[in-house]
Amino acid sequence: MKNPVVNLTQAELSALKMELEAEYSEFASRNLALNMARGKPSSTLLDHNNCVLETLDAPYAADGTDARNYGILEGLPEMRNFFGSVLGIDPEQIIVGGNSSLTLMYDSFVRLFMFGSGGFPAWRTFSKLKFLCPSPGYDRHFAITQEFGFEMITVPMTENGPDMDIVEKLAAEDESIKGIWCVPLYSNPQGVCYSDETVARLGKMKTAAPDFKIFWDNAYGVHHLYGEVKLADIFAACNAGGNPDRPYYFFSTSKITFPGAGVAMMAASPAERKEILKRMGIQTIGSDKLNQLRTLRTLKDAATLKKHMAELAEILRPKFDIVLNTLESELADGGFATWISPRGGYFVSLDTMDGCAKKTLELAKNAGVTMTGAGATFPYKIDPRDRNIRIAPTYPANDELQIAMKLFCVCVKLATVKKLCGEF
Amino acid sequence: MKNPVVNLTQAELSALKMELEAEYSEFASRNLALNMARGKPSSTLLDHNNCVLETLDAPYAADGTDARNYGILEGLPEMRNFFGSVLGIDPEQIIVGGNSSLTLMYDSFVRLFMFGSGGFPAWRTFSKLKFLCPSPGYDRHFAITQEFGFEMITVPMTENGPDMDIVEKLAAEDESIKGIWCVPLYSNPQGVCYSDETVARLGKMKTAAPDFKIFWDNAYGVHHLYGEVKLADIFAACNAGGNPDRPYYFFSTSKITFPGAGVAMMAASPAERKEILKRMGIQTIGSDKLNQLRTLRTLKDAATLKKHMAELAEILRPKFDIVLNTLESELADGGFATWISPRGGYFVSLDTMDGCAKKTLELAKNAGVTMTGAGATFPYKIDPRDRNIRIAPTYPANDELQIAMKLFCVCVKLATVKKLCGEF
Repeated sequence: MKNPVVNLTQAELSALKMELEAEYSEFASRNLALNMARGKPSSTLLDHNNCVLETLDAPYAADGTDARNYGILEGLPEMRNFFGSVLGIDPEQIIVGGNSSLTLMYDSFVRLFMFGSGGFPAWRTFSKLKFLCPSPGYDRHFAITQEFGFEMITVPMTENGPDMDIVEKLAAEDESIKGIWCVPLYSNPQGVCYSDETVARLGKMKTAAPDFKIFWDNAYGVHHLYGEVKLADIFAACNAGGNPDRPYYFFSTSKITFPGAGVAMMAASPAERKEILKRMGIQTIGSDKLNQLRTLRTLKDAATLKKHMAELAEILRPKFDIVLNTLESELADGGFATWISPRGGYFVSLDTMDGCAKKTLELAKNAGVTMTGAGATFPYKIDPRDRNIRIAPTYPANDELQIAMKLFCVCVKLATVKKLCGEF
Repeated sequence: MKNPVVNLTQAELSALKMELEAEYSEFASRNLALNMARGKPSSTLLDHNNCVLETLDAPYAADGTDARNYGILEGLPEMRNFFGSVLGIDPEQIIVGGNSSLTLMYDSFVRLFMFGSGGFPAWRTFSKLKFLCPSPGYDRHFAITQEFGFEMITVPMTENGPDMDIVEKLAAEDESIKGIWCVPLYSNPQGVCYSDETVARLGKMKTAAPDFKIFWDNAYGVHHLYGEVKLADIFAACNAGGNPDRPYYFFSTSKITFPGAGVAMMAASPAERKEILKRMGIQTIGSDKLNQLRTLRTLKDAATLKKHMAELAEILRPKFDIVLNTLESELADGGFATWISPRGGYFVSLDTMDGCAKKTLELAKNAGVTMTGAGATFPYKIDPRDRNIRIAPTYPANDELQIAMKLFCVCVKLATVKKLCGEF
């Protein structure tokens, strides 16, 4: 770092502020309307998947089952085989859902809360419920935990996943802690990949709650951008630790085919899966099997999926390059922010100087660039240091993204300088 | 009735039993394997809807929204407009779901149980919960009520809907009664259509529970077979009675396009809908909008739907004719059973002599014809008089249905005669 902004004199800061304000005004005058708020794919990327829209010939499963009619609660065998082969999971542990893995997570909370599982009491019978929330994390996870009245315990992230010393201590001590949220590969928003050691420790750690659950949301399990990162097997880790019923595994094709019309799945131990299916059978006769067939006829098998994801990465990687190159060229030298360069997934996470995230995003919004709200990556939407910002570069076109990122960097710098000038 | 079986002498009964046993043996020797257990459409009927499988050109909503991407929790405006126009409901009251109205019902129970609505306490906070279950009724409704721990109160059906004298009395007296299941048009299984008076009384009746809910499952709302029957407007009735938040309305295209891949919806008062959407937004980012477009491009508008349903009725009506003609020719004279001739829907409900339903279905099953289990049409699967049988004629091919119905009638008669002979 050549000349950290914190080392500037008041006069230098004032001069820099004027310079940045001029740059900002120039951007603001352009009447931009760009959205980097959510992890949505661009229409170019979606166009690449349009084969899913084509006529579905022969709407029958491999065994002849008429996929148009009712039935097959657990999903078509070939769909379970596909997920199993892609993720390294026994298809007999898999349940295929509708278009949303979020719904499978929410509904899992419903079942645990209403009924419990494995012979343990329903979670609603406890006077106090807590959940471990590695943060920065995914706002929709936190929203579920909050909706069900859990106290959310923030656990800091390391470059290898959640800080396992803290996770182990908390989980061992407090029986009201019922589980943990995990996005183990290319975590949302930091892009952290859980190390083998982290996975092993999650599988074997002692928990005060006998029905502690790992919500293993492997949303970006095949979303490599800069080479493949391997994730250790959470089922193997939990089995090795003597805790086979601990993990609930989630995945979907939302960011493989179409976000609004993908196929979601969950997996669990044979005992848990049996219980889940029994209860799920009260809620539905089965998910959309035609969409399973459509998805399968596009993605075919693990090898075809790999090729497909490499093609999508060709579209996505330039966006991440724009983000990371702009951050590097604009912010690195002045020490305005820190960030992690992800190797896959859908996001880049950036930390401003403490107390500057809200102001940065306010400046960006006022100049026409909407980003994920400040605090969204923390429980209760409260970032204790007001510094984390989630950048979602996948939706805008590349030229727009370049402009948005330039503006964003001006906003980071301007907020920092204003802060150092004591303006807020 | 020429010669009621109950008037036969023991000698006549014995002779008849021998005759029926011979007939039964002849059927049993054919190694039949026919299924009339569930309300599934036949493949011929599904083939008629195959246009839904065709390439979805231009996956965009009328307002340009990319239906492939995330969003639009409440469903595409044109999908809500379609349902609104078909059912006479304000589209602003409608929420489009996934492929299952059963799931929308289950999830409504979840929300009421977990959180309550309209400022009233969550149902889980009550020590005692009861639900009115007009019977014979739909087994999957009863399964939801049972899963959530409700005591199910059986209410007898009349030809105009549930016995409203009983419904009004119970609902007014007992604040632990939180609602009622209704299939108001061509009820499952009897095909009863609720009269205008029944609907008006449901809307205005006093209920001890201030948050009493009508689960209005209009599953067969457009499934006319022998001319159109009009159903009174439950929202108007509840508004007129000063109970706007009382009804939850459910409908789907499961038996219009494909049972496994239709589009479901629910509707509620503006206040209830707002609350539902807020909570639903924690569970999902939105349902499959591509399937909404596919469905819309086939069904188009209310007039096209009407034509479509008339075409489906051409396929279904011969099946009902086979059932009703066979019952008439085989069972009417001997007074073996009573049944209602439905004017639409998916089922025919038959009552044997008391205590003969289980035996009839056992005989049918042993000869290769599987039907909905005895008792399934009552809470807890217990038919207090062991007499009600649901006939689901929609799945088998017509020639198979004819054979199955002939055998079924032999089984009804044989069970009756065995009963009268004191064999069980």
